[in-house]
Amino acid sequence: METFFSFLEKRVDDCSSLICIGLDPHIPDLKEPSAAAALDFCLNLVKQTAPYAAAFKPNAAFFEVFGAEGWTALKKVIEAINEESNRLGSRIPIILDAKRGDIASTAEAYAQSAFENLGVDCITLNPYLGKDSIEPFIQDPEKGVFLLCKTSNPGASDLQDLVLESGDPLHIYVAKLAQTWNTKNNIGLVVGATYPETLTRVREVAPDLWFIASGIGMQGGELEPALKSGLRRDGKGMLINVSRSVARAQKPGVAAAELRDLILEIQGSIIVNR
Amino acid sequence: METFFSFLEKRVDDCSSLICIGLDPHIPDLKEPSAAAALDFCLNLVKQTAPYAAAFKPNAAFFEVFGAEGWTALKKVIEAINEESNRLGSRIPIILDAKRGDIASTAEAYAQSAFENLGVDCITLNPYLGKDSIEPFIQDPEKGVFLLCKTSNPGASDLQDLVLESGDPLHIYVAKLAQTWNTKNNIGLVVGATYPETLTRVREVAPDLWFIASGIGMQGGELEPALKSGLRRDGKGMLINVSRSVARAQKPGVAAAELRDLILEIQGSIIVNR
Repeated sequence: METFFSFLEKRVDDCSSLICIGLDPHIPDLKEPSAAAALDFCLNLVKQTAPYAAAFKPNAAFFEVFGAEGWTALKKVIEAINEESNRLGSRIPIILDAKRGDIASTAEAYAQSAFENLGVDCITLNPYLGKDSIEPFIQDPEKGVFLLCKTSNPGASDLQDLVLESGDPLHIYVAKLAQTWNTKNNIGLVVGATYPETLTRVREVAPDLWFIASGIGMQGGELEPALKSGLRRDGKGMLINVSRSVARAQKPGVAAAELRDLILEIQGSIIVNR
Repeated sequence: METFFSFLEKRVDDCSSLICIGLDPHIPDLKEPSAAAALDFCLNLVKQTAPYAAAFKPNAAFFEVFGAEGWTALKKVIEAINEESNRLGSRIPIILDAKRGDIASTAEAYAQSAFENLGVDCITLNPYLGKDSIEPFIQDPEKGVFLLCKTSNPGASDLQDLVLESGDPLHIYVAKLAQTWNTKNNIGLVVGATYPETLTRVREVAPDLWFIASGIGMQGGELEPALKSGLRRDGKGMLINVSRSVARAQKPGVAAAELRDLILEIQGSIIVNR
């Protein structure tokens, strides 16, 4: 049976890449603050980086900020990714970075919006509301979710590092809990890669889950420890999210290709040393 | 200086009501699943219940599910509420129920979308990402946020009831933390009213904050313990969220008026007994 993650792994194999290209058309990067400029920004980035993209991750906020027009632009970005997939003959998963979290019929509406109306393959979700807030999103094994586990921002420690009575920090508890919810193999985790030891600990308790690693600068110095800490035994299991470092490069396609190759090189040396 | 909560308290005084009318045009309540039907549903509810509404709370999901058209409908709902405010000569706060939670420029985009573009007064937020995810929303004291503390769904216990090393359940810790973040007096809490003892405990640690109490059925039997547990010493400090019980009444205006009066009666008896 195909699941979201078997689909993702096929794409990872097809393009030999673990890069997730974040589509974050935030206003300082646009020629003018408009939905049309956000769309242009994303279409250009999609076109140039698609061959090296294991996944694309449009961020809902940067479309929502332009209201109805932004929503239309988001839909067009998704269509453009699907066109690139057809051109390449290898379908590229689309992860909506929305960090939604709500209950009952509200969660169902968000799931319908993402999976049926926008037609994305996967969505990021916030775990604070518990299992029933996740359930409407994981009914179809071909659709996936990445749950926020440990984020890369300074305030992440405010709640996510709180130590529970059991001795686990909250984010480790979330990583364990996610696995008990993962009966259809379509749940992954968002894990900030700012501190490699966090990736190591989450990988220890969740040896098989896919991660999206966020907050990695493009210096090889940050990339190598992150890959060593976060990759699964099979050398996969972690998407490296990149956004500004590729989008702001003079040639985003070249920047993505170079990053893909650097990751391949590090991956190779890690597997050899295991 | 006016803050969001001084504005809310003025409205509470003007209409002698603690009712927050949830605008949740979910599909089973619509004649047909369309943005136009969602808009009709909300316009009717706004018109009929405005005199008794301390606040309106449109839920983003039920508009987002209709894409660009849904977003346009949400904007029209907000305009309609502002027209009712003008007609009544008393401005009714609008709380966007969005439960957003994101970081840095993403959080800024969500704040701009809600406060500047849609023009709402307040938004619900998820605390899992910590203080910096809240900050862009609390810069202007006239704009408010309600942080999710303890929600009313079955899965709320999965994370929110976890006991920390310090002995506090996570939701109590969140209630305490929210107060340290509340330097501009524009942070409140979402507290499920399913269990009155939860309201009691959160009120103990957060004696001054405003709550939105969710999940209250309209039987007086549930309402009285919730009010006794959650109201502040001054008999205010808690919005009672109602949605289907009013929206599905044959005459929503009459249902809202009756509920307002029932709350007033219970409020009166509580204050007398204190």
